[in-house]
Formats: sequence, C-alpha cells, structure tokens
Amino acid sequence: MDIRIHIKQPTLLLDKNKCTQNIENMLDKAKRCNLSFRPHFKTHQSAGVAEWFREFGVDKIAVSSLKMAQYFAEHNWKDITVAMPVNLREMDIIDELAAKITLNVLVESAETIHHLEAELNNRVNAFIKVDTGYHRTGIATEDTESIQNLLNYIKASTRLEFKGFLAHSGHNYKAADADKIHKNHKKAVLDLNELKDVFRSQFPDLEVSLGDTPACSISDEFFGIDEIRPGNFVFYDMMQFVLGSCEEDEIAVAMACPIVAKNVDRNELVIYGGGVHFSKEYLEADDEGTKLFGSLVDINLDTWSPIRSGGFLASLSQEHGIIKCNEELFNEYQVGDLIGVLPIHSCMTANLMGSYLTLEAETIEMMK
Amino acid sequence: MDIRIHIKQPTLLLDKNKCTQNIENMLDKAKRCNLSFRPHFKTHQSAGVAEWFREFGVDKIAVSSLKMAQYFAEHNWKDITVAMPVNLREMDIIDELAAKITLNVLVESAETIHHLEAELNNRVNAFIKVDTGYHRTGIATEDTESIQNLLNYIKASTRLEFKGFLAHSGHNYKAADADKIHKNHKKAVLDLNELKDVFRSQFPDLEVSLGDTPACSISDEFFGIDEIRPGNFVFYDMMQFVLGSCEEDEIAVAMACPIVAKNVDRNELVIYGGGVHFSKEYLEADDEGTKLFGSLVDINLDTWSPIRSGGFLASLSQEHGIIKCNEELFNEYQVGDLIGVLPIHSCMTANLMGSYLTLEAETIEMMK
Repeated sequence: MDIRIHIKQPTLLLDKNKCTQNIENMLDKAKRCNLSFRPHFKTHQSAGVAEWFREFGVDKIAVSSLKMAQYFAEHNWKDITVAMPVNLREMDIIDELAAKITLNVLVESAETIHHLEAELNNRVNAFIKVDTGYHRTGIATEDTESIQNLLNYIKASTRLEFKGFLAHSGHNYKAADADKIHKNHKKAVLDLNELKDVFRSQFPDLEVSLGDTPACSISDEFFGIDEIRPGNFVFYDMMQFVLGSCEEDEIAVAMACPIVAKNVDRNELVIYGGGVHFSKEYLEADDEGTKLFGSLVDINLDTWSPIRSGGFLASLSQEHGIIKCNEELFNEYQVGDLIGVLPIHSCMTANLMGSYLTLEAETIEMMK
Repeated sequence: MDIRIHIKQPTLLLDKNKCTQNIENMLDKAKRCNLSFRPHFKTHQSAGVAEWFREFGVDKIAVSSLKMAQYFAEHNWKDITVAMPVNLREMDIIDELAAKITLNVLVESAETIHHLEAELNNRVNAFIKVDTGYHRTGIATEDTESIQNLLNYIKASTRLEFKGFLAHSGHNYKAADADKIHKNHKKAVLDLNELKDVFRSQFPDLEVSLGDTPACSISDEFFGIDEIRPGNFVFYDMMQFVLGSCEEDEIAVAMACPIVAKNVDRNELVIYGGGVHFSKEYLEADDEGTKLFGSLVDINLDTWSPIRSGGFLASLSQEHGIIKCNEELFNEYQVGDLIGVLPIHSCMTANLMGSYLTLEAETIEMMK
C-alpha cells in the first residue's frame, strides 16, 4: 500500500512498530531496575495509543491536566496521577474524578492542602512535589522542615492520603550532553534517597516517583526510586535524538508535508506545514544561531527513510515552512510531492495535529 | 458581572469593543487611502468574529488554507483569497469551492498553472505571488520575464482568470522599528507600482494586493495599491506593540490563567498555562537573551488592566508557565487567583485555544 495517496495536507505519521518497541524497551528497563512504570500520556494524548500500553500490562498513568485525566478516565484508566500542582479552580473536577478512580494529586503548599480538605467529598492520594534542580515547581529536597510541615497537615487530613514524593528533572531537557544528564540524574537520585531516609520512619510505605525521558532512557541507576513517569519516549523526537536519549530510528513520528513551491534562486522548498502544525520549537544548529525546525526524511511507500543530509526545515510561519537545501536534494523534489520532517518536539507537534495516521493508513484520534 | 467566576482553566479573553474598534480603524484607513479591504481571517479563525466584520460591510476575505476557506464558505463568505501557494494535492477542494464562491488562488509556477488547467472543472481567479523582500514565496518583482511567461500560460488557460499581483511583506514582522517598516513598505509599494506599469497595457484591470499588519497599521502611503489584507490587527499582540503597530490598549485578547503555585525563594508564580495554550513564541527582552513569553495584566471584574510592571512570563513548558516578579507583585497574588497575560503572537495563541470568552461571558467558537 502507498500511504502517500492518503495525504493531502500536513499529516502526522505514526510508526506503530517503532512506538510499541519504545514502549517495550522502557517497560523492560523498568522491570530490570525494579521500578513501577507509570507512563506520562501528555505526549500522545490518545486513547488509541494508550491501548498499546495496556496490551503490555500497563495500568497506571500520569497526565498533565485534569481535562486529560477526565479523557483517560472515560477510556477506562483507573489510576491516574495529575502531574501538575492542584488548580484550586477545578476542585469540582478533582472531586468528581476522585469518586471514580484512584486519583493522585500534587501538593506543595499548606493552602492547597486546606482547600482539598475543605472542598473534597472524596479521598485522593497526595504526592508532595519536590524540586530536584529544575526549579519550576516543588519544594527543595533539602527543605525537610517545610516538607514536615506539609506532612503534618496531610496526616491530619481526612481527605488526603500521603503517597510519597514526586519529582521531574526537567533540566535534563536542557542538558548539553548525556554526561550532564547522568550527573543531574545521579544527584536527583541521591537527594531523593536522602529525603526518603528522613521520612521513612514516619511513612514506611512512601514512594518516590521520578520521571523524565532523557534520564529514563540513558540511565540504569535508579536505586531507591519506586516509580518512573517518562512520556516523550513513546515517540521521541529530534530534541531527544540530539540529547542522546534515542537513536534516530527510534523516532516514531514524522510529519508528511506537501511541497507547494520551489525557489530555484535560493534552493528552497516551500512546504504546506507551519507553526500551527509543528509548533515553533527549534534547536540551534550551530554557533551562529541557525535554527533547525526539523530534519528531513523521504516519505516512501509505507515507511520513511533515514534522515537526509543536504537540507533542513529552516523557518516556519503560520502555515508555511521553508526547507533550505543543496542543489541535489532540491532537484529531487517537485511541487506536489510529499516530504517528511522529523519534529523537534513531538509533544507539541502531536498536540497541534490532533490525530495520527499510522503507516497502515489507520487514523488514530487524540483528545479534543 | 464578574467574568472571573467563569474561568477555571486557561482562557482566551476577547474584548469585543477593542476588537471592533480595531476593525473600524483599519476600515477607515482603507477608505481614506482608497483601498479595497480584504481582511485576513487566519488570526481569529472564527465565524463569530467574522460577523463583526460583516456588520461593517466587509464582504471579501483572505485565508491561509483551503480548510479555512471551506469553513468560511460554509459561513456564507462568497469571495475568498487563499493566500498560500496552490497545494496540488487539494485540487478537488479547490474545484469544489470554485463551484460555489469567488475563489482567488496564488500561482507562482508554470507547473501549478498546468495542473489547475488540467484538473479543474470550475473557473478560479489567479493572482501571481510576487516577492517584495520577505523571500518566503513568490517571484521577485523585478523578474518580469518569468512573470510574463506565467501570464502567457494564464492567458491561454480556460480555467484561470488573471486578477493581478499579490505580495506579503512578512519581513516587516522582523523589522527593528517603525522606521524600518516604513522603509520596507515604501520599497514594496514602489516595486509593485513598477510591476503594474510593465503589465498595465496587457491587463488594464490588474490589481495589486498587499497585506501585513505592521505597514497597514502605521503607513498612509499606498499609492497604486488596490487592496490590503492585514490579519493580526483584529487582535494585535505584544509583538505588534513592540514593533509600534499598535497601542497597548488596542490589544484585544488576553489570556487568563489560574495561579497554581508560588515559589517564595525565587519570587515566582506558577501558572496553569503553557506552550499548548500560548505557543512558545517569545520576544527578546534584553541583550542578554532574556525571553519574554507574555506581559502581565490584572484580570478585573469585566476588563483587564494596563500592563503591570514588576513581572513577566519568563518560561513555558507544556502546561505550566513561570512568572518572574518582584516582591510587591508576588505578594499581591495568591494560589487560586487568576492573572492575565498579553500574548506575544495572538495568531498562534488563538489557534491553540480554539475559542474565545468575551468580557460579556459569551463563548465564541473557532474553526475546529
């Protein structure tokens, strides 16, 4: 079958074999390291892709919004961690979900605990969000006084059940290389173990949950960690490839875009495919600030090729993209052809595209 | 009425008064300069907002995809320019639309003209896309030989009716200041007039269409131009404010985001509102590479305040944003409050949000 005949507009292709292999690899890692596996579903946002996880026995997940929690709860996921600080304006949704499923929420302030206690009718599990160096949210792991303070409130609560500590080493996405990821990760694991040691006597069953695709992909050192929550690994992308988290042939999604014009003076291909399809995430391709918005592949009958040298997606406006290339590549492509682009950040691209087309020409819908 | 009680999640507020004033101002400019007004609807993508244009007598529009053309055609817009090079893979949609409405398409290659001629049953109007310095698409205005070549094909065609030349000075969005915009614009107008002079004897009725919000906002010099197609002006945004295209109080959209955490050590507010809501467009706030992802406003009863100094949206991940602020601003806000953010690029933010909430608490849907 020629997948290309199904493609008129920018389309996000999904290679199911690569994707399920990525799931299996991460699951193997979790088993090998004695870790509970709670994949983050914010990357694919799709009940269809979620079923591929279920086939491997996965039964608990993380999401990044209550809306996403509602969506997956409707699709029969029964144990969901909302990996965002509690939004006090959505207390009704939390309560509604807590009545139906095992809902795990993140707290990091006394105020939030008081609101949950006062406004919920149903019980939820609570993780205290701790900061392992990303400095986005959470209490610093060394600030055990503040943590004890929150724990006292949680102990006194009739609505909250303390589960443990949850961290996200988001700074690994900004690491210069794999060495830096290993270094960040070792420090996070050490800090989380120290934290566990402090509170283990009060809470013998406390769990530590950690999750980021770079460290979960490249490290095997998870001593003392109970659960991992990587998300992006399901597809990977150019950002992860450059970080060293994956091989090129593990990237499971590629955009297929029609070529709508060619500029022979500048060796540029103009594609239908812009910021509303890819997002405007980029990598810096060199020291002169050249931006890379995606790497090129050929779209073949029922697969895509390895990355083509000699060209790259160099700029994006709302609906157009400009591919700069050498003459050889330029001459291979005609107006009306499709060209493939491996996205920089698959989470953002998938979120914009709203659905996938598998290489078997099956459309897989995402959350609306 | 307190608009805030309607807001649980990141919400794109739309101030109808500011928006309709922006429409009226641009319409006045068009009348004053004797220009036909064909607003670009890619910014708002909403049949509801489109009706506000219709009330001012606007009856022709530009869009950036055939999907958008289909959507607005369904909402009774009868004269639509698709301001993208023709996508040969969507010829069936072009033909279908051409049967129903006055459809204007862009061509810039002989190949595309041949395909239109061979595959269409219905007639379309054709503009030749010319390049006034943006270097994205189009034939250089001075390349009259290539243009004559295309014109010969169009003349011989039974499906295409030549309408004129269409340009987009997209380089004005990257201008350093208003002076540079004036300079770019003067050159574009001059080049388009020269082009018109060359072909006027063959095509006495040829039209020249130009459109970008910066030049259409700040210039009054449109001699020889027949039509303008600005889009972003309907809302404006921080990018246009910094360029000098608008006043701050002309920005007609603001994101309202719940505060979900506060970090007292860093004076940071964590909001529910990330790259999947704002897009990741940013402005460089200084020479040290500080990124500005949005400026802050207070969300009041039924309006938002002028820009607050003392803080800014400093980073975005998928669902979170981090606001850096001074102590004064930090102390004003509590977890659970809403804070407002004027977006950097309203086109991209609107595209992600999918609907608007007016200050009268009316929800206005966008194209899906």
